[in-house]
Amino acid sequence: MINITLPDGSVKEFESGVTPMDVALSISAGLARNVISAKFNNETVETTTPLTTNGSLVLLTFTDDEGKKAFWHSSAHLMAQAILKLFPGIKLTIGPAVDNGFYYDIDPEGQKISETDFPKIEKKMLELARGKHEFNLREVSKKEALNYYQENKNPYKVELIKNLEDGEITFCDHDDFTDLCRGGHIPNTGLIKAVKLMSVAGAYWRGDENNTQLTRVYGVSFPKQKMLKEYLELLEEAKKRDHRKLGKELKLFTFSQRVGQGLPLWLPKGALLRERLEAFMRDAQREAGYDPVVTPHIGNKDLYVCSGHYEKYGEDSFQPINTPAEGEEFLLKPMNCPHHCEIYKSQSWSYKDLPVRFAEFGTVYRYEQSGELHGLTRVRGFTQDDAHIFCTPDQLNEEFTKVIDLVLYVFNSLGFGDFTAQVSLRDPENKEKYIGKEENWVKAEEAIINAAKEKGLNYKVETGEAAFYGPKLDFMVKDALGRSWQLGTIQVDYNLPERFELEYKGSDNEMHRPIMIHRAPFGSLERFVAILLEHTGGNFPLWLIPEQAILLSISEKYENYSKKVLSSLKNNEIRTAIDHRSETMGKKIREAEMNKIPFMLIIGEKEVETNTISVRKHGGEDLGSMTVEEFSKMIKDEVSSSLNKFKV
Amino acid sequence: MINITLPDGSVKEFESGVTPMDVALSISAGLARNVISAKFNNETVETTTPLTTNGSLVLLTFTDDEGKKAFWHSSAHLMAQAILKLFPGIKLTIGPAVDNGFYYDIDPEGQKISETDFPKIEKKMLELARGKHEFNLREVSKKEALNYYQENKNPYKVELIKNLEDGEITFCDHDDFTDLCRGGHIPNTGLIKAVKLMSVAGAYWRGDENNTQLTRVYGVSFPKQKMLKEYLELLEEAKKRDHRKLGKELKLFTFSQRVGQGLPLWLPKGALLRERLEAFMRDAQREAGYDPVVTPHIGNKDLYVCSGHYEKYGEDSFQPINTPAEGEEFLLKPMNCPHHCEIYKSQSWSYKDLPVRFAEFGTVYRYEQSGELHGLTRVRGFTQDDAHIFCTPDQLNEEFTKVIDLVLYVFNSLGFGDFTAQVSLRDPENKEKYIGKEENWVKAEEAIINAAKEKGLNYKVETGEAAFYGPKLDFMVKDALGRSWQLGTIQVDYNLPERFELEYKGSDNEMHRPIMIHRAPFGSLERFVAILLEHTGGNFPLWLIPEQAILLSISEKYENYSKKVLSSLKNNEIRTAIDHRSETMGKKIREAEMNKIPFMLIIGEKEVETNTISVRKHGGEDLGSMTVEEFSKMIKDEVSSSLNKFKV
Repeated sequence: MINITLPDGSVKEFESGVTPMDVALSISAGLARNVISAKFNNETVETTTPLTTNGSLVLLTFTDDEGKKAFWHSSAHLMAQAILKLFPGIKLTIGPAVDNGFYYDIDPEGQKISETDFPKIEKKMLELARGKHEFNLREVSKKEALNYYQENKNPYKVELIKNLEDGEITFCDHDDFTDLCRGGHIPNTGLIKAVKLMSVAGAYWRGDENNTQLTRVYGVSFPKQKMLKEYLELLEEAKKRDHRKLGKELKLFTFSQRVGQGLPLWLPKGALLRERLEAFMRDAQREAGYDPVVTPHIGNKDLYVCSGHYEKYGEDSFQPINTPAEGEEFLLKPMNCPHHCEIYKSQSWSYKDLPVRFAEFGTVYRYEQSGELHGLTRVRGFTQDDAHIFCTPDQLNEEFTKVIDLVLYVFNSLGFGDFTAQVSLRDPENKEKYIGKEENWVKAEEAIINAAKEKGLNYKVETGEAAFYGPKLDFMVKDALGRSWQLGTIQVDYNLPERFELEYKGSDNEMHRPIMIHRAPFGSLERFVAILLEHTGGNFPLWLIPEQAILLSISEKYENYSKKVLSSLKNNEIRTAIDHRSETMGKKIREAEMNKIPFMLIIGEKEVETNTISVRKHGGEDLGSMTVEEFSKMIKDEVSSSLNKFKV
Repeated sequence: MINITLPDGSVKEFESGVTPMDVALSISAGLARNVISAKFNNETVETTTPLTTNGSLVLLTFTDDEGKKAFWHSSAHLMAQAILKLFPGIKLTIGPAVDNGFYYDIDPEGQKISETDFPKIEKKMLELARGKHEFNLREVSKKEALNYYQENKNPYKVELIKNLEDGEITFCDHDDFTDLCRGGHIPNTGLIKAVKLMSVAGAYWRGDENNTQLTRVYGVSFPKQKMLKEYLELLEEAKKRDHRKLGKELKLFTFSQRVGQGLPLWLPKGALLRERLEAFMRDAQREAGYDPVVTPHIGNKDLYVCSGHYEKYGEDSFQPINTPAEGEEFLLKPMNCPHHCEIYKSQSWSYKDLPVRFAEFGTVYRYEQSGELHGLTRVRGFTQDDAHIFCTPDQLNEEFTKVIDLVLYVFNSLGFGDFTAQVSLRDPENKEKYIGKEENWVKAEEAIINAAKEKGLNYKVETGEAAFYGPKLDFMVKDALGRSWQLGTIQVDYNLPERFELEYKGSDNEMHRPIMIHRAPFGSLERFVAILLEHTGGNFPLWLIPEQAILLSISEKYENYSKKVLSSLKNNEIRTAIDHRSETMGKKIREAEMNKIPFMLIIGEKEVETNTISVRKHGGEDLGSMTVEEFSKMIKDEVSSSLNKFKV
C-alpha cells in the first residue's frame, strides 16, 4: 500500500501501482472525465503511469497551465500522425506545446504543405481523434531507438537521440503512430474535440540558417468546440485592439525609419495622453511625499562602471559616445538609479531626513535587436515613472506598504481590477549568490510579505526569484481579454547603496548605509499606454482621455453659437474638440465614433433656440438635449466618481 | 569748406581740417567736455583728427559702447606707461580694450607683477593721468617702426610689425610713452579720473602654450570716481547673484563629475521650478493653439544627414552611437526640428489644416569643451521650450505676430520689462548666400518688420545677419543689474522644409512647401533659470516660486495646530513648507530668509488662541496676524495681479 497526498492536504491509501486516473475515479467520475494529465512529486506523469511510492499528486485539467501543455503536446502528436498520413514520406523533427497551442517542424521532402491544406489536416485529425487512442509511453534503449529511426530514414530524430545523454529514452505510441517523446500526455485522443491550424512558417533545423529549412505548422486544440469558438473570437477582438493598429487610428504615435526603429514619435493626442498620465502620477506622488528631480539622458561611462551596469550590459548596449577633443566617454542612460544615487550623494543626510523619495519621468535607452521590437511594448527608448526611495532598515516595512498603496491606487484609477502579485525571495540554499547583510535580507523579505498580507494582495511567493541585489514584488494585471501583463514593480536594493557608498548619520551618530527601493507603478509610459489601449480598446477613462467631447454643428449657420458653447465648455474645463468641416453629420459622427470620443455634442436649429446641446454617447446612446452646465456637471460627476484623489 | 552731417540729420558747414572736438565745441562746451572719441563715415577717428571731406560724424561719450572702448584702450596705454616706469626692462606685447575694461600682456623679463603691486600701479597711473597728456597718432614707415622696436629690444612688437601688411602703420604717443597702435583714443589722459586694477593672470604669447608665458594685467577705468564706485558695487551684487552660488544655496541644482561636466542634476526645488515654468508655458501654448509632441533624444545619423546638421556640426559634436549587432549609427539630438519634420511628414496636409504648431520641451545635447562650460548658461545638455510652426507663406505675418505676443507675455510675466529686439535680414549684395525663393524672402522680411512695428517693439534692423535659411527676430532682455542677455528667438526657415520635402495641398490642388518657424521664448530652461536667478537674486515671482510660505512653530506644543493650518493652506493651493525642527525661532527665520521664502508664518500661543497666523515677509516686514483665509486671499490676489492668463 502507498500513501497519496492530495493538494488539499488530505492523504489517501492506495495499492501500489495505482494510476493518477484511478485516483481521479476514486474521487469522482466528473473529475475523471476532466483529468488530462498529472504531476507526481512535482514531476509530470501520464494519467496511466503506475504510482509505486508514497508521494503528492496533482491532477491536472485543461484549466491548469500544465494541463493545457499536456493537451497541446498530445495534439502535436495527433497533427503529426494526420500529416504523415496525408503527406507520406515527410520527415518529423520536433513538435512542442507553446503558449497558445503547439507546432510541429517538418521536413516536407519536396512536398508542399500550405494553408490550403489546413481543412483536410484538421478533418483527418478529428477523424483520428474520435478513435480514442490511448497515449502510451514506453522506455526503449538508445540502440533500439536509433535502429527505429535509422530504419525510418529520419536523420533528425537520429541526431536528437545521439545527443541524448545515456539513460532513459522514451517513445510514445498512440494508434499506429510512434514518436520520440519525454511524456506528459492526456489519456487518449478522444479528449481532443476541436482543432484549428493557425499558420505555416519557415524554420531552420535547430534554428541555424545553415541547416535545412523546415515547414513549421502551428495549431491550437480544445476539449470543447465552444472553447475554440471563444478563443477565435478573442483572437479577433485582440487583433482589433492591437495597440499598433489603434495607435495609428487614434493618431497617438508613429514611427519613422529615418528617426530610427523602436523610437516612438508621440503625436499631439498621444502627447496629451502622456501629459495627463504624468500629471495624474505627479499629483499622487506629491501627496505621497515624493520629490521630483530631473537628470540628463547620458552619463559618463565611469558612472555605469561604478553602478555595475557597464560590466553587465556594456557590450550588448548602445555603444559609448565619444567626445571630439577630450577623450571622455558617455553612455545613454539605461536606468535612472545611478543618477539618483549621485543626487543623494550631493548632500549629507541624517536619519531624521529619511526617507527621501526622488521621482523622475526618466527616459532611458536600451538597445534591442530590430527583430525584437514590437509597437510600444518593446522599444529602444522609453519613459519610466521611476522613483527611488532611500530609507533606514526600520522604515522599509512602512515604505513598502505605502508604495503598494500607490500602485493599487493607479490600477484602480485606470480600471485594472484584476491583478495578482508575485513576491520573489532568495534561494535559501544558495545565499552566497546574493549581496547584502543576512539580517537585512531577513528584514526585507519579512517586510514585503507583511506588506502584501496587510494589503490583502492575492500573491504567490517564488523562492529563488529575487534579484541578486534584493527581494522584489511584481504586479501582473489581467486585461479585458483576460491576458496577463506584467506592470508595476517594487524592488529592494542593497547593491547600489554599497557601490555608491551612500550614507546617513544614524541616531547613534555613526554612519550607516541606507536601503534603496526602486519602484515604477506604470513601468514605462510606452508599455502602459500600449496595455491600456489593448485593455480599453481605445475607450480611455473619461478623466484621462484627451478629448472628452466633440462639437458637431449641422450647418455653418450655427458657427457663432458653436463658438459660444465651446468657450463655455472650456471655462468648465471640459476638454472639447470641434469639427468645423462642411461634411455631412453622418460622416462627422462616424469619424467621432472611430476616434472613440466619449460624447458628441450636436448643434442645430433647435439647440440654438433652446440654448442647449444634444448629447450622443460613443456607441450611439442618445442622452437628449441639455444645457452646457448640465452636461458639464454630468462629466464632472462621472470623473470624480471614477477618480479619487490619492490620500495618504 | 566741407559739410558735416550729424546723427540728428542736420548738416553743418565747417572749414576743411576741422576736428571732431572743434565740432563738439561748436555745439556746446558741455558736450565737448564729455566727448572722448568719434566716428567719421563709420570709421573710428581721434577727436583731434582733421576732417577734410564731406561726411557724417558721430561724437562719442563714455555712455556709448564705442566711447567706452576708446576710453579703456587709452587706459591700457596709461597702464603700460605706469608699469614700465615701475618695472623698467619689462617688454610690452598687446593691450586691448575688452567688454569690462582692458588688459595688457607683459613679458616681465624675470620680474614679478602681482596683486600687491596694484595700489602703486594705480597711484602711478592717476599721477600720470593728471598731466593731461594728449594722445597723438602718427604714421610711421614699416622700416622706422621696426627700427624703433629693435632698438628697444622688443621681439613681440617686431613680430607684430613684420606680420602687418605693408601700408599704414601708426604709433601713438602720449607724454614720454610710445606704442604701436591703430588708434581710437580719448583726447588726453586727464579724462581718466578713476582706475582699478582687477586681476593678474598668466597668458601665452599669441595664445600658444609653446610660446613664452606672459603676465596679463586686467584693469578698468572711468571718467568719474563715482562711476568706479558704482561699478564695483555692481560687481559685488553680481557676485552675490551669481546663479551658480544661488543655485547651490537654494538647492536648485548640482553637478557631479561622475555623471559628467556640464550635465546639470536638478534637485527637488529646481525640478519644481522647472515644472512650474513648463506648466506656465504649456498653458499659454495650449491657448495659442500649439499641439504637444514628444520625440526621442537620439535619432539615426541619416536624419541629421538629411537635415544637414551632421555635415555642419558632426565632427565637433558628440560622436555617433553604434549598436552592437546591426551597424546602425545614432546621434544625440542637437535640435528637435528634424524630429518635428518627421512628425509633419507622417501624414498628408491640406492648406485648410495649416498652420500646425508642434511644441515640445525637448532636451538636446551639444558638445562644448569643458573649459567653455559655465553653470547653467553654458552646458552640454539643455531643455528647449521648442516649437515649430508649419504655415503657408500667406500665414507668416499673422503667425509671426502671434509668436511675438507669446514672447511678450512671457517676458512680462517673469518681470523682464526692459528688452530690445533685433531683426536680422539678408545681405542684399549677396543674395546667392541664402536659400529659398526671392518672393518668399521679401514676404518674410516684410512680415517680420511689420510684426515688430505692429507690436511697437524697440527694434533695430541688422542687414546681413539673417541665417542662410531665413530671417529672424531675437530678443535681448536687461536684468536688474542692467546686463543684457539674449533670450527668445523667432526664426523663419526655408531650408528644412526643402530638405525634408515637406508638402501641403494648396487651394489650387497643387502641392506646395510650407514655411517653418522655429521659436523658443525661454531659449532653454537651464539658461532661463540662470538669468532669472541673477535677475531676481533668487526672489522669484510669487506665482512661480516653489515654496510661497513656510510655517514656523514656536514650540512643539503647537504641532496639531500647525498641521491644521498646513492642511488649510494646501486646500487653498498655497504652496507651503513646514520647519518642524526643534531649533530656535531666530535660526528658523534666518534660514527661511536665506532660502528666499516670501512669507514666514509664525505660530505661537497667541495664534492658537485666536485661530490666526502671524505673517512676516521676506526681508523682515511684519504684516501682523491674520486668518488662513485672509492670508490665502492676499497671496491669490498678488498672484493674479502679476500673472494674467495668456489670451489670444
